[in-house]
Formats: sequence, C-alpha cells, structure tokens
Amino acid sequence: MKTRDKIIHASIELFNEQGERNVTTNHIAAHLGISPGNLYYHFRNKEDIILSIYEEYARNLLLDVFPIVSPEVKAFDSIIMYMDAVFQAMMKFRFFYSNLPVLLAKNPMLREKYVEVQVCISERVSQLLLKLRDAKMIKFADEELADIVSILRLVNTFWLSFYQTQTNNVVITDSVFYEGVLKILVIIKPYATEESLPEFFKAREIYREHFHKALEEM
Amino acid sequence: MKTRDKIIHASIELFNEQGERNVTTNHIAAHLGISPGNLYYHFRNKEDIILSIYEEYARNLLLDVFPIVSPEVKAFDSIIMYMDAVFQAMMKFRFFYSNLPVLLAKNPMLREKYVEVQVCISERVSQLLLKLRDAKMIKFADEELADIVSILRLVNTFWLSFYQTQTNNVVITDSVFYEGVLKILVIIKPYATEESLPEFFKAREIYREHFHKALEEM
Repeated sequence: MKTRDKIIHASIELFNEQGERNVTTNHIAAHLGISPGNLYYHFRNKEDIILSIYEEYARNLLLDVFPIVSPEVKAFDSIIMYMDAVFQAMMKFRFFYSNLPVLLAKNPMLREKYVEVQVCISERVSQLLLKLRDAKMIKFADEELADIVSILRLVNTFWLSFYQTQTNNVVITDSVFYEGVLKILVIIKPYATEESLPEFFKAREIYREHFHKALEEM
Repeated sequence: MKTRDKIIHASIELFNEQGERNVTTNHIAAHLGISPGNLYYHFRNKEDIILSIYEEYARNLLLDVFPIVSPEVKAFDSIIMYMDAVFQAMMKFRFFYSNLPVLLAKNPMLREKYVEVQVCISERVSQLLLKLRDAKMIKFADEELADIVSILRLVNTFWLSFYQTQTNNVVITDSVFYEGVLKILVIIKPYATEESLPEFFKAREIYREHFHKALEEM
C-alpha cells in the first residue's frame, strides 16, 4: 500500500476508535511509524485527510452500495439492499456520522461534496419508494414522497448521534447499527399495504436476528 | 437583573447568534462590559455556563411547555401544544440543538441531566400518543409505541442539525423551525384514522401558514 493510502486507512481506524476530535495528525503519524513531515507531504492538515476519506472512500461506498432501481431486482430485495447500504456506511464511517454538523461546518469543501452526494441519495431513495409503490407494497400520495424521503434520511444520518445522546454508555457495537436499520422499517411500515405485511415482517425478522446476534457477541 | 442572570442571558443570545464554538467567556464578559474575573466569580468556565442554562432555563422550559395529558385538554389541542413546545425549545436554545452530541460529550454532568429530562419527555410523548389513540384519532399496536416515540424524538432533536447539513445556507430563520414541526405531523399522519384526517389537515394548515408567513418575513 502507498503511504498516502496507509494514512487514510489508519485515520479511518483511529477516528472510529477514538473519535475524530481526539486524534491529531501527530497521532496518525506515530501510529504508522512515519514522521509528521512525511504525513504533511501528503496532506495539508486533518481536514484535508477527512475530505479525502469522504471523496475517495465514503462517497464511493455510498454510491456503490445504495441500490439503483432496476427491473432485475425485486422490490422487497431492494429494501434489504437499502438497509444494508445504510448499515455499512454508518459502521465504516461512524466517526463521520457521530459528528457530522461540526465536520461540515469546519470544512466548506466537504460540505459541498456532502450536499452533492445527498442529492443523489435522495433521488435513489425516492426511486426505491416509487418502485415499492408500483409493486403495490406501499401506498402514499405523490405529495408525501419528499417528506418520507427526508425523514428516512434524517433518521439514517442522525441515528448514531441520537443513540449517543440517549445513554451514558458510549460504546458503539454492531447492535447499535442494526437497531438504527430497523428504524427504517418502522418508518415505512405504516405505508405498507395489507398484502405486503408478511414480507415486511420477514425483513424485520432478518434484522432482528442480526441485532440479537450482535448483542450476544458483545 | 443580577450579574449571574445577565451572564446567562447574554450567553444564550451570543451562542444562538454566533454558535457556541465561536464564543469564549472573554467574549461574553466583553459583551456585558464586565471583567473576565467577575464572570469567573460566577462560573468556572463555559461548560459551567452551559450546564446552568440547561438546568435553570431549558429544563424548565421543556418541562413547563411539554403538555401533560389531562382530561381537560382535547386530544387535538394536545398535538398543537406538543408542536408548540418543540418549536419553542428548538428556537430558544438553537445553539444547544445545533451541536448536541459534542456538548454532551464534553460535559458528563450535562449529559446526565439531559438523559433525565429525555426520559421524562418520552413518557409524556407516550401518554400523548395513547390519549390520541383513546380518542380514536390514531391507531397503532402497543408494541409499536416505543418506536414511534423514539422516531418523533429523534426527528425533533436533530431536525436543526439535519437542516444545517443539507444546505450551504447556514442562516436559521423561524421558517426552519416550522418546517421541523411540520415533520411531526408527517410522522403521525399514516397512523391517523379516517375520521380524524380532517383535524390533521387543519393542524397542518395552521403550521403551513406559520411557515409561509415566516418565509415572507425573511
């Protein structure tokens, strides 16, 4: 691996474990056994590292795993794909979601990239909901779509922050992410048609099992 | 007004206007025309001021305005009271909601008080939803209650943060708060019974008018 990539990977790891606020560029250099000067040859400062993490890793992960509606994928499977995408993004970049407003406020270029990706994700979530409606799995009026999408995105984005404000226990395990993913189904469920409820309950069962297994592994 | 209260009021004002991160105890003292020493006579540091704001103002506001279910209040009016409470708390302590996870992480005593108040608010929101169900305005199964309450609280708490991450325009006006309050109805609406829909639409109309009026006043 090239030094630049090593710096990025070590930063993701340290930020996730210790919180971005508590990690300096000196920590990152020491962790890799390189000199601070070597690190500064690749990145101007910590904000620059975070921007690169977003541009080169988080952005691609989000856009790769967020399902694009296609006729080959069954409506039900696309909900599972959506939930998996949210889970993976939250887990791999937990430092980012723990502290999003602050990171964006400090870094206007990051904010710009972030807003760009969010527009794209909103579009995909809208397509997903329209596909579920076409498949008669959910029901909603056209004018409700934007609000449902925005509540789904808000809950996905701030689940981790919410969890951290609700408890004095600050350890984040996989069960926390599964709990967040289950909230997606809570939001969609009241829109479900009578016929589709068994499928919803099946999806919920899958994620509840993941959740309980993760709790046991703690 | 006593110096201590003046410091608290000036701090709320400066934090809301400039963001808590950008305001130091020296700024607060200068704004009031008092010496830093005088400020330190009343408060040990900025965290101490924030804790007092929460304990003496925010906590009381939340517990005073958050409706307690009582037989004298009509079910529909209690939704309006709930929305007003959320609106007032978000607006008066916007600095708090813009940066909640960071403020709580820095201040364990604040976190403890916050968690205490949240438990109480959850209980009141649950009572409100049960009252709406008794009045046959909404329908949900008992096991859904906790999830609905937690999504409502998540959206209320992080609406402002979400708004700030979604746009490059960082100015917060009243219309932003009304938009957040309208999201409460978006979440409750799919649970509404057929008979209660006209009342829901009436509540939505009231807040949409507030929202549009606030937009015009910008």
